[in-house]
Amino acid sequence: MSTAWSLHPQLAKDTIAVTDLPLSQLLLSKDANYPWLILVPRQAEAVEIVDLNPADRARLMTEIGQVSETLRDITGCDKLNVAALGNQVPQLHVHIIARRKSDVAWPRPVWGVAPALDYDPKTLQTFSDTLRRRLGPAS
Amino acid sequence: MSTAWSLHPQLAKDTIAVTDLPLSQLLLSKDANYPWLILVPRQAEAVEIVDLNPADRARLMTEIGQVSETLRDITGCDKLNVAALGNQVPQLHVHIIARRKSDVAWPRPVWGVAPALDYDPKTLQTFSDTLRRRLGPAS
Repeated sequence: MSTAWSLHPQLAKDTIAVTDLPLSQLLLSKDANYPWLILVPRQAEAVEIVDLNPADRARLMTEIGQVSETLRDITGCDKLNVAALGNQVPQLHVHIIARRKSDVAWPRPVWGVAPALDYDPKTLQTFSDTLRRRLGPAS
Repeated sequence: MSTAWSLHPQLAKDTIAVTDLPLSQLLLSKDANYPWLILVPRQAEAVEIVDLNPADRARLMTEIGQVSETLRDITGCDKLNVAALGNQVPQLHVHIIARRKSDVAWPRPVWGVAPALDYDPKTLQTFSDTLRRRLGPAS
């Protein structure tokens, strides 16, 4: 019997849930340093992209594309960073981060550079609502 | 008229070419700290994954899967890191890195942590030959 999927506690702590796409749960990082989204395929025990079957890998790429285009469109960022690392949180998750040449870590990758910066709660909620409106499902 | 694709000079300097897959050139980093491969889609002016059309995005995911499975199989690594960053080299390229809990950067991402370590030339050539034999085309 397969284990039911549930979100890793560390991801739950660091993010708010935006919406459920066909394969993945979409999360928004609470770190206001960067507009930072995370896709988490709802596949119990998946650690690597290659733990997904080929159909789910294709779905993941479709979702990476949709989320990347939406994030770029909303933020007008200079660069997107897309990464599946998982050295600290083993549950498969894909970071999609909008980078600006003026951000605190540029041009370095974001991990470990600056302490997380709190969002104004209203700003975080508005950002999440905008994403949900663009990426559905209709609420 | 579209511009012809050519490999970015920084990527050419830091790697050796392993083989050409249907979409991407496969490179092997000369940094012996980590078994580190890079896929570079041969699409002039592509900077982001979402600059590829949907068919090429799907091909990229297929190639990420093939290369990831081969690299994991050859190295017996503890974790794969897959990332399209491009903050310093704008040409679209996808890192596929075999991580070990004993490597110099673990559990941090590899970028900027340790100076590149030279390979013994024979080891580098043998690694490249092994990858080429596994990922084709037949030479």
